[in-house]
Amino acid sequence: MKVTIIGSGSWGTGIAQVLADNHVDVTMWGIEEDQINDIQNNHKNSMFFKDVDLNPNIKATTDISVVNGSDVVVLSVPTIAIESVCKQITPYLDKKTIIVNTSKGFHPETNERMSEVIRHSIPEDKLSSVVSLIGPSHAEEVVQRILTTISAVSLNPEDAKTIQKTFSNEYFRIYTGNDEIGSEMGVALKNSIAVASGVLSGLGYGDNTRAALITRGIAEIIRFGEAFGGKRETFMGLTGIGDLIVTCTSPHSRNFQAGYEIGKANTAQIFWDTNKKTVEGVRTAKVVHELAEEKGIEMPITNEIYKVLYEGKDPATSAKDLMLRQLKPE
Amino acid sequence: MKVTIIGSGSWGTGIAQVLADNHVDVTMWGIEEDQINDIQNNHKNSMFFKDVDLNPNIKATTDISVVNGSDVVVLSVPTIAIESVCKQITPYLDKKTIIVNTSKGFHPETNERMSEVIRHSIPEDKLSSVVSLIGPSHAEEVVQRILTTISAVSLNPEDAKTIQKTFSNEYFRIYTGNDEIGSEMGVALKNSIAVASGVLSGLGYGDNTRAALITRGIAEIIRFGEAFGGKRETFMGLTGIGDLIVTCTSPHSRNFQAGYEIGKANTAQIFWDTNKKTVEGVRTAKVVHELAEEKGIEMPITNEIYKVLYEGKDPATSAKDLMLRQLKPE
Repeated sequence: MKVTIIGSGSWGTGIAQVLADNHVDVTMWGIEEDQINDIQNNHKNSMFFKDVDLNPNIKATTDISVVNGSDVVVLSVPTIAIESVCKQITPYLDKKTIIVNTSKGFHPETNERMSEVIRHSIPEDKLSSVVSLIGPSHAEEVVQRILTTISAVSLNPEDAKTIQKTFSNEYFRIYTGNDEIGSEMGVALKNSIAVASGVLSGLGYGDNTRAALITRGIAEIIRFGEAFGGKRETFMGLTGIGDLIVTCTSPHSRNFQAGYEIGKANTAQIFWDTNKKTVEGVRTAKVVHELAEEKGIEMPITNEIYKVLYEGKDPATSAKDLMLRQLKPE
Repeated sequence: MKVTIIGSGSWGTGIAQVLADNHVDVTMWGIEEDQINDIQNNHKNSMFFKDVDLNPNIKATTDISVVNGSDVVVLSVPTIAIESVCKQITPYLDKKTIIVNTSKGFHPETNERMSEVIRHSIPEDKLSSVVSLIGPSHAEEVVQRILTTISAVSLNPEDAKTIQKTFSNEYFRIYTGNDEIGSEMGVALKNSIAVASGVLSGLGYGDNTRAALITRGIAEIIRFGEAFGGKRETFMGLTGIGDLIVTCTSPHSRNFQAGYEIGKANTAQIFWDTNKKTVEGVRTAKVVHELAEEKGIEMPITNEIYKVLYEGKDPATSAKDLMLRQLKPE
């Protein structure tokens, strides 16, 4: 089996570590020459993991033709790049390939989910199916071989099983699922809740407040996800509560970190002025806010974080408006 | 309104702070003279909160007759003491009193829930109803007036509303509920899962592993709670997921801490040899293990933590047995 990973970021590297440990023929493709050389020659990705030795069997290249002959292509790029990399790899796909999606969010213009974007961007004769490999999985831990449990979700159960078999090992445990809508909605929406969780921490709120936020967060994720056809029980699993918890409570989360800085400064301006990393929750808040307004779905947390990010509302007021709503039965 | 708090521990103190801030006539009762004097004279409970100033209107006494004339009595003692303090206060109750339960667990011999224990221990003519005030609420934060959201759960909706009105303020938000079984099961069972979460951390597992544990933890709590008549949606709220998250992820949690030490030493013997604090999850694991066996409910996490605590199984093996089970659909 030949697997190509598109993207040389932290998660692509984590996935490559897993596959190389499983003796799979794996190559990472990226555009940063220094980084690619670092992986190929030093078996390091120093930009992300200064102190971690990578499996020396991970190959890395800047030549996109490496996609040729791949049985599986893993897309590990931000949501805004998914459509363009699909178009970029298509000429090199030479059979019905399994495309593994690892991105969590929506297309910034069409508001489509990631699996939909991929299906619309790669011709049918080159696509076996899309498998989303998503769940509570910070790359920083996977690359160090710390036990991680994740879902392989696909409309094609055979492809989900193939991915499960190819990627699973002692520290990377994969469960299969078929509720594509529920799973992709869960992992996308949780990023905005995590920004809100970071804001609360930055403002000085504590663990009690955060637990209340997460509890209400899963409720609004379920409301939204069900309205779009997701199954309620999916939100109780790894791509729902599981991913929400890890993103809202772990210092590894970029979404949480971005929120934390916003809370500390009590303004989102600091984010717009200084941020250079991909923070999916910021984009997702906008998409979800729009979709929820269209459908009339109540999303108090997402709406407050939208106001903080896009309408200049100050975070302290926003937190009070959110947490001090009228008392009522739960 | 006159409120007496039975117990001068951390949570009793947190509750007293809330009530005094709300200008309620509140007295704490306890048996430790030094501690009671500290509260009454220094407006401190230094044993638990060295640096926190208490509201000077909190009174404290070692005289149990203070219960006389109380409209509300809050029980803030470990689960094993609930039955005996009920018997101790009964002679001083002089009207139908609201008893507020704050304990999370089961009677150690009869396996009854806390509300049941209280109803069986206080005569009907002295008991208006039991209201359980439970949810994600570390005392360390409440006493510092950090925003906390919690449930007042009772079979008597009027009493739940009275407690909501009496206790609510800007930093202490109360939602009412009536699923006594679901709520009490949720807050009790989560303590054992938190011990397991601590064990995993002590063994060196990370945030990804913990998220997987919590996700499976809520699933087994729901299985158990539903089998005893709890409502599924209750487990999605503050007394379910909310309390589970805060206990599994916060350093304030004694259950987590106990588990952490056990994981680090890779044996529960260290707990039995050195522990002096109340760690409810340890007792709860035993009760839940027994009840689940009787009813044939699958409780993989609770059972592993039971084996670690009571059968000398080593934590590292237990964690592997738990987390590396056969792959399957989620």
